[in-house]
Amino acid sequence: MPNYAFLLEYDGSKFAGWQRQASDQRSVQGTLEEALGTVSGAPVATIGAGRTDAGVHAEGQVASGEVETRLGAGALLRALNGVLPRDVAVRGAAEVGPAFHALRDARGKHYRYSVWAGEARSPLRRTRYAPSPLPRPRLELGAMRRAAAALVGTHDFRAFQSTGSSPATTVRTLSRVELVEAGDALEIEVEGEGFLRHMVRTLAGTLLEVGAGRRDPASIPELLGSGDRSQAGPTAPAHGLTLVSVRYDPPVLWGTPEPP
Amino acid sequence: MPNYAFLLEYDGSKFAGWQRQASDQRSVQGTLEEALGTVSGAPVATIGAGRTDAGVHAEGQVASGEVETRLGAGALLRALNGVLPRDVAVRGAAEVGPAFHALRDARGKHYRYSVWAGEARSPLRRTRYAPSPLPRPRLELGAMRRAAAALVGTHDFRAFQSTGSSPATTVRTLSRVELVEAGDALEIEVEGEGFLRHMVRTLAGTLLEVGAGRRDPASIPELLGSGDRSQAGPTAPAHGLTLVSVRYDPPVLWGTPEPP
Repeated sequence: MPNYAFLLEYDGSKFAGWQRQASDQRSVQGTLEEALGTVSGAPVATIGAGRTDAGVHAEGQVASGEVETRLGAGALLRALNGVLPRDVAVRGAAEVGPAFHALRDARGKHYRYSVWAGEARSPLRRTRYAPSPLPRPRLELGAMRRAAAALVGTHDFRAFQSTGSSPATTVRTLSRVELVEAGDALEIEVEGEGFLRHMVRTLAGTLLEVGAGRRDPASIPELLGSGDRSQAGPTAPAHGLTLVSVRYDPPVLWGTPEPP
Repeated sequence: MPNYAFLLEYDGSKFAGWQRQASDQRSVQGTLEEALGTVSGAPVATIGAGRTDAGVHAEGQVASGEVETRLGAGALLRALNGVLPRDVAVRGAAEVGPAFHALRDARGKHYRYSVWAGEARSPLRRTRYAPSPLPRPRLELGAMRRAAAALVGTHDFRAFQSTGSSPATTVRTLSRVELVEAGDALEIEVEGEGFLRHMVRTLAGTLLEVGAGRRDPASIPELLGSGDRSQAGPTAPAHGLTLVSVRYDPPVLWGTPEPP
């Protein structure tokens, strides 16, 4: 059976997360597999590159799976977008080699944590931006940038991992932790090879404590060294997080709905 | 009674429009008045600068009304944001002179019409961007810009007015009709002293026909001259439209929730 990769965008607001649930809860994976089943006429199992939590959005999640279809990637994409609900869409599709595995082959991910730091709450941004502890003029952005820089590199991120998970190693490498200002919005761009559970949200919660003057940016190395989750900041809300892209080597050559 | 002005942001998706409805339908005006009643303990009537339709958003709608309260503008604003639902917020409040009238005193408005012209539909933009007839590489942006330029100035905009309304005059002055590109998003920025019913949406629908190559930009003066609604393009969907700001002279000095 041909193996396909799919590039997915979704609004996570009304999903119980990426992963198919045993219960009736609505998942992105379950929704995609149902659409693939409708289009191909046979059950399809998919694998996602990142198991985004309930409420987390994606601009560029990647999933792979074998699909029994004679449709080309472009026609399959159009057919899927015709049956998928409005809060999820396929941005690209590609037939990939039989060994391609969206999770195992992922070489890196880019996440964005979005914070609204306006004087008043913003109804138009409420589903994608988490609230700031202080409005932007009072946030200590310089201190946040110093703390962000201390997180870049290869570290044991055990202190930033949600309790209850137990991966083989908690050492991860981040290539970018950058604060980008856009008016009263603040984007924390995080790129790395791999992430622990809730790592980006805990990192965002910790950086916001630094911004609010409640934590010294110079204490980040000590926090990393402690390996103690209770010393890091709170897990920032899910709806501020977006999986922007997943990197593969070689890159997947996405077909889009329209010919170029 | 002190007279107040309020600067409002709302997500129009779940409102039947600005204006209070005789029926049970949810309106922004009714929601604001209910919140003002809760905070002040007495019924409040408000006037809006623009009667946005169902689904239309606002970043800077302005409303005014007399409120029996001893709270200052800042405390009133904070109290309102505490009781208003998540899809509407007060961004600024000001005590204004007894004669201030949000509708009559408005000297100009800025609307934005947002179009998503990506290759695939965008779930994360679905509530704020209307679909484009063609993806961006195939849209004729130069032709759209020529058509937009022909709309700037003082014209009889009768051909862009929804049937059924009958204002004293259909002559209006637009100071700006500009296309702004942001990746695969296209924003049509429209500023003017006043607008006819559905005028910005019909203007957007007409410009998108030009972009799709279905209408000659050189035909805009003739279309204006015809005064014939049936010759203009379709009324573009409400959810692409945002009331960005309302201009007053002198400007309202908005107080915000936080001291500067």
